[in-house]
Amino acid sequence: MTPKFKGIIAYPITPFTSNEGIDAAALKASIDMMIADGVHAIAPLGSTGESAYLTDSEWDETAETAINQVGKRVPVVVGISDLTTRNAVRRAKYAEQAGADAVMVLPISYWKLNEQEIFAHYAAIAQSISIPIMLYNNPATSGIDMRPPFIAKMVKEIDNITMVKESTGDIQRMHQLYKLSDGQIPFYNGSNPLAFEAFVAGATGWCTAAPNLIPKLNLELYSAIQAGDLPGARKVFYDQLPLLEFIVGNGGLPPTIKAGLKIKGLDAGKPRSPLKPLSDENVAILSNLMRTLSADPYKAAA
Amino acid sequence: MTPKFKGIIAYPITPFTSNEGIDAAALKASIDMMIADGVHAIAPLGSTGESAYLTDSEWDETAETAINQVGKRVPVVVGISDLTTRNAVRRAKYAEQAGADAVMVLPISYWKLNEQEIFAHYAAIAQSISIPIMLYNNPATSGIDMRPPFIAKMVKEIDNITMVKESTGDIQRMHQLYKLSDGQIPFYNGSNPLAFEAFVAGATGWCTAAPNLIPKLNLELYSAIQAGDLPGARKVFYDQLPLLEFIVGNGGLPPTIKAGLKIKGLDAGKPRSPLKPLSDENVAILSNLMRTLSADPYKAAA
Amino acid sequence: MTPKFKGIIAYPITPFTSNEGIDAAALKASIDMMIADGVHAIAPLGSTGESAYLTDSEWDETAETAINQVGKRVPVVVGISDLTTRNAVRRAKYAEQAGADAVMVLPISYWKLNEQEIFAHYAAIAQSISIPIMLYNNPATSGIDMRPPFIAKMVKEIDNITMVKESTGDIQRMHQLYKLSDGQIPFYNGSNPLAFEAFVAGATGWCTAAPNLIPKLNLELYSAIQAGDLPGARKVFYDQLPLLEFIVGNGGLPPTIKAGLKIKGLDAGKPRSPLKPLSDENVAILSNLMRTLSADPYKAAA
Amino acid sequence: MTPKFKGIIAYPITPFTSNEGIDAAALKASIDMMIADGVHAIAPLGSTGESAYLTDSEWDETAETAINQVGKRVPVVVGISDLTTRNAVRRAKYAEQAGADAVMVLPISYWKLNEQEIFAHYAAIAQSISIPIMLYNNPATSGIDMRPPFIAKMVKEIDNITMVKESTGDIQRMHQLYKLSDGQIPFYNGSNPLAFEAFVAGATGWCTAAPNLIPKLNLELYSAIQAGDLPGARKVFYDQLPLLEFIVGNGGLPPTIKAGLKIKGLDAGKPRSPLKPLSDENVAILSNLMRTLSADPYKAAA
Repeated sequence: MTPKFKGIIAYPITPFTSNEGIDAAALKASIDMMIADGVHAIAPLGSTGESAYLTDSEWDETAETAINQVGKRVPVVVGISDLTTRNAVRRAKYAEQAGADAVMVLPISYWKLNEQEIFAHYAAIAQSISIPIMLYNNPATSGIDMRPPFIAKMVKEIDNITMVKESTGDIQRMHQLYKLSDGQIPFYNGSNPLAFEAFVAGATGWCTAAPNLIPKLNLELYSAIQAGDLPGARKVFYDQLPLLEFIVGNGGLPPTIKAGLKIKGLDAGKPRSPLKPLSDENVAILSNLMRTLSADPYKAAA
Repeated sequence: MTPKFKGIIAYPITPFTSNEGIDAAALKASIDMMIADGVHAIAPLGSTGESAYLTDSEWDETAETAINQVGKRVPVVVGISDLTTRNAVRRAKYAEQAGADAVMVLPISYWKLNEQEIFAHYAAIAQSISIPIMLYNNPATSGIDMRPPFIAKMVKEIDNITMVKESTGDIQRMHQLYKLSDGQIPFYNGSNPLAFEAFVAGATGWCTAAPNLIPKLNLELYSAIQAGDLPGARKVFYDQLPLLEFIVGNGGLPPTIKAGLKIKGLDAGKPRSPLKPLSDENVAILSNLMRTLSADPYKAAA
Repeated sequence: MTPKFKGIIAYPITPFTSNEGIDAAALKASIDMMIADGVHAIAPLGSTGESAYLTDSEWDETAETAINQVGKRVPVVVGISDLTTRNAVRRAKYAEQAGADAVMVLPISYWKLNEQEIFAHYAAIAQSISIPIMLYNNPATSGIDMRPPFIAKMVKEIDNITMVKESTGDIQRMHQLYKLSDGQIPFYNGSNPLAFEAFVAGATGWCTAAPNLIPKLNLELYSAIQAGDLPGARKVFYDQLPLLEFIVGNGGLPPTIKAGLKIKGLDAGKPRSPLKPLSDENVAILSNLMRTLSADPYKAAA
Repeated sequence: MTPKFKGIIAYPITPFTSNEGIDAAALKASIDMMIADGVHAIAPLGSTGESAYLTDSEWDETAETAINQVGKRVPVVVGISDLTTRNAVRRAKYAEQAGADAVMVLPISYWKLNEQEIFAHYAAIAQSISIPIMLYNNPATSGIDMRPPFIAKMVKEIDNITMVKESTGDIQRMHQLYKLSDGQIPFYNGSNPLAFEAFVAGATGWCTAAPNLIPKLNLELYSAIQAGDLPGARKVFYDQLPLLEFIVGNGGLPPTIKAGLKIKGLDAGKPRSPLKPLSDENVAILSNLMRTLSADPYKAAA
């Protein structure tokens, strides 16, 4: 069976108006742009979407706007990350009712959670909805690290967890997920600089904000690997690597992607305080990186 | 000038009713108990108070209830930790209007914050209130680590930051704060197993949830050090250390303190999901520790 | 120009007699076995060869025996790791005179070294010999971590450093070496569980002790990648991964490889104290892993 | 029973002549100086003594020279750290025969050692000598970390391990050693910036290279604590802290202590390559720190 989610799964940002409201028009425009560019799925309200910084009503508005705008052109997976189980359940139900194809669930810590607490959190969400769950591990932002054996156990014991997203950037985690399930758990890579090797190791998809800025290079990497063209994949990966490293290393994804969209002509506003817009110096570097990649002969020829 | 906050600064838990509402009666009882026991200040809505897991209206209710219940018998410092600057400002203003003597501000990360972002976060809160701020560093829960030189800079440049709470448990951080300010920045220790040495190194106070369970031992440690009784302080510290280690090492403070209060006869309800109540096995260990400490001859003689 | 060292670069163990002398006969047998199996180069006196545990005269004897036994059938790179620059220079000169094609230099720390000290250490060795140096980074054993920009600087500024071996297991280090040199620095992978992705990312060779036990699977991985057969490479990699993980994760390489050779019929003695032989329990696991891999249908068909 | 080793246990450096031989005259002078200053014991061939960088014959010469020069004026504990059990045993026996009162044993790793291997290493040394062993934990230089429960087990099960030196700088390790033995295991602190709190927590002694440079301040700290003068101890600790931090933070102890001795008029030569002498810039900082501390009014008055 072909998984519903595969290939390039793109995160939109959450644009804000000048008075810090949700800018629905800019959100729609960013989604339309990435679908037109050919991405295989849309993932609103992820880390890039500043979901952690939204009020509940803003979150609901963003989820509904994004799902409606996609309009079934590609599948939609909505990010769910809330400190309390109660509100995570509420958001998951909201996303399902609004038409999401799946939810991507990241447990969040203030106090560290033990495995029983994490399991119960996932189970409560799973029981409240009927759409699939993509289990999401990202200790750098969430403060919680779920190791592959525990992930494999949850996939086995909780019915609608059917996908795993790994964002540690550690390729050995993917090896372990593969071996623990004889290659049967579809896993997705959430670490941009690992995009090439994760696909090689068997990842089903790449969850990334990069298609906001360089969708063609992202898609070409996936195509080259699908076609078994190892030298071509290596070339297109190393070409885009400086940008992939830049967007995760300089102030975080929201400020960087918003700055990059502005360079492309779409004003998505500022990230929400305490996050600050990308510095002028970094905007200049990003602008230069984007210009270089647009002029790449490989990409031009493709 | 004697600092307003010194000695044993106690965190109350936030008790919940069986339907997950705020149990104001239990909150009041826990505060009265600790004031009767002799603690020097009360710090509601800290980590122990599960403030990260409360809705805004629950937070406001808890702040107001706690401040009113203390009723100026001892000073009150209210914990402020919110991902957005906007809501941190709102809470700080609410605490001031409700009568807090100070606020204790912990910046929180989803995306890591750089120093400019942290500075602006504190400055925005500081400008919105006129009561003092206790800057609070606790990377283990907040995901943000502020090093002593940066802390000293903020204390110097932002007027109403007048106190620093350090919870890394690294005594060298306190040494650095001391040296960077010639002993002029009042610093407070938030790591229970470091209580003894932090006071020895010059800490003005100890912010702790332990007085919910063993207030006399906590206060005796402070008294012995004030009296220059090093052997006595060492003895009473090592006596209480197993309990201090237990409450931070087995499921986090909220479940453990709530379990300990129940052993003492005060039902503060369960922690909020995904946090789970202390396991039966750990309740038994805690009960035994508390019984042993109550029978301690040193304490009995005091 | 084709690099002299490429593909599968195999580490022999250093066999000991029952009275802890060098067992030259067993060393020769292990080298002959791996050359007969088809490995592309031999690297005596690496970590697997317990070089850190040898006296100077034992080290010299092992170097000379190994180089002579290879007898130019494949290239030889000799491991040099000594705390003092003086003795590292002495060993490098000895290896050159004994006929080594290259030396692989790992700086070792008791006191941490700064970059000036590391640079001077490499420069002193380089000036004393005329054969090429493979710079070797392995902080887990050496206590010294050389980051890619510093490595690239040394490659550029010290004439006979012409190769880099990276054993951190972090694929991003290889990406950086590639980008820093436009793909011009030949880099070698020293982390067994990273073998597949390192080759995919452009590694010239894989330095490994695994060919002592499963040479055909190691060579097949390299062949499949050279042939652009991504599914085949993935299959043969995942097949051998449990053994690759086992040999680095259970008591270190020397005890494990010596135990595996004994299973294959070659008695190489015990590792030197304080290292202990592999436990009986682990010998049983290893034996089972080796039997399973020998019966692998893919390998049988190849 | 009063432990033989207590108070200030001073490390001499190992001075080298200009042609890299042992400079016995300078070694003797440095020992005489510290004994005259009043230190309570001498510990040659520790980390500061560059023992890891000496040949066996140099090591033997240094041990014998140091022990003879002390001449029973104070107790001597000789550092033993060798990768192989065989040579560690040889050195321990040599030290005993040369008249050492105890040996301080640090296991060293190239390959990580498991607890069985570490235990066997200590047991082999213990069985070969009849003088006491100070077990020494210092993962930063040795690569091996022994946790308090394992240390307590070795103290209990291996007869002549009677003292523990802890150099992690983590005060909680000392708390655990204290609690695990009801205060019965004498523990010694090897982390200079922890000197004050370690004594407060119950340490029997402080193993340090600082008495080469500021013996009076080191001794005053110990005296103040013995006298129960907490404010005095705090003052003299904070006074010397900048120097204590400097000597461990800028190029390691051997270069820094040798530079400081030269400032005092004793030329101990250069550290052995790859270690480099302290940079001119750091020599200036050190010189200034030493001058400031000599002029300290507290010290002058004492």
